[in-house]
Amino acid sequence: MAFFVEGAKNVTELLLSDFNISHLLFTDRYLSEQPDLIERFEGEKIRTTAAELRRIGTFSSNEHALAVADIKPNLPVKIKPGELVLALDDVRDPGNLGTIIRIADWYGIEKILLSPETADLYNPKVLHASMGSFSRISFQYVDLAEKLAGLNLPVYGAFLEGDSLHDFNGQATGILLMGNESKGIRPELHTLISRKLTIPGFGAAESLNVAIATAVFCDNFRRLAN
Amino acid sequence: MAFFVEGAKNVTELLLSDFNISHLLFTDRYLSEQPDLIERFEGEKIRTTAAELRRIGTFSSNEHALAVADIKPNLPVKIKPGELVLALDDVRDPGNLGTIIRIADWYGIEKILLSPETADLYNPKVLHASMGSFSRISFQYVDLAEKLAGLNLPVYGAFLEGDSLHDFNGQATGILLMGNESKGIRPELHTLISRKLTIPGFGAAESLNVAIATAVFCDNFRRLAN
Repeated sequence: MAFFVEGAKNVTELLLSDFNISHLLFTDRYLSEQPDLIERFEGEKIRTTAAELRRIGTFSSNEHALAVADIKPNLPVKIKPGELVLALDDVRDPGNLGTIIRIADWYGIEKILLSPETADLYNPKVLHASMGSFSRISFQYVDLAEKLAGLNLPVYGAFLEGDSLHDFNGQATGILLMGNESKGIRPELHTLISRKLTIPGFGAAESLNVAIATAVFCDNFRRLAN
Repeated sequence: MAFFVEGAKNVTELLLSDFNISHLLFTDRYLSEQPDLIERFEGEKIRTTAAELRRIGTFSSNEHALAVADIKPNLPVKIKPGELVLALDDVRDPGNLGTIIRIADWYGIEKILLSPETADLYNPKVLHASMGSFSRISFQYVDLAEKLAGLNLPVYGAFLEGDSLHDFNGQATGILLMGNESKGIRPELHTLISRKLTIPGFGAAESLNVAIATAVFCDNFRRLAN
């Protein structure tokens, strides 16, 4: 199974990653910007135009490149002691998933567990929103109830009614679990959660977008770990 | 000048706000959900269907309501001592602006200054992403250089290379200035900035989306204020 990525940023990150890339389509402009990366690439190279890239891909404009690579096998993610790992329970919007991947990469989170109903990692909108960060993170689509039950690690769940994240000063490692855009974390996972945490609100908005909330949680956890 | 808002959440928040609303279009479903709000509304009421709302508005589906209201005059925002105010320098993406408005409302920020090149507050995408929070915040489109120079308040600027936000323990009031999606804060504003602050990164992503960064800044500032 193959997927494709578009645009200078994502293609460059893909070329620098351990993905197996079969085809690289590039314009003269991308060649002038990344001559060494293109030179070193060992798959099939196709020189083309921005107009052609636009026809093939999903972007409204793509002046640079498009690459085709193999989807990685869905292998079990192994978690090291002292590591912080994200788990997403049915985050369905591709833009949210891509943004969360970029946030994870900013905060040095290397692994993400995804429930089967979470958006497809290889959806062009996910890859685009991730700004290349998808290439640096390991993913596993998995039954979260089963996976979390077998880990023996603390599981911190993001809720609208939990303990204040600002008061939390426990060990900021283990699993950070974020829920669906409208429904939150599924009830069947609640018994697996060590602690329910909430971003303190100071105004009248009812909630925050799940990608926004993920960033605030990661920031608070990384502040503690330092 | 008028604008319109769509969907149950935004229309309900608009009806609860101090906006001057001229028309309310609603379905039987919205009538059953918000009978009192509709009863109290003194402008022109039009009972209609979801199909009609879809034709009039920008949403792909709208089962509830659409309202037309007057745009508020662009009055000077007055800042109280001890207040935290957001300033946006050319945040051009409507989704980002709407998300930032929702974040501001979550963190109890009541005023936002916007450079003239920032997205239009009354763009349907902005209103939609704000999830009703636009109705609770005061806005001023203004030349930021002139406005900030006249305020005599600390101005904290979000930069990729500044002091760590996690180490900041100054007074978390005054102006929090966020820059354009790709260019950041314009150089002409740099001399007005009291302190450049940066969200500490722990991984390899080059940057964070401006709405994400705004949330992390607000969270850190509100943590300090408490």
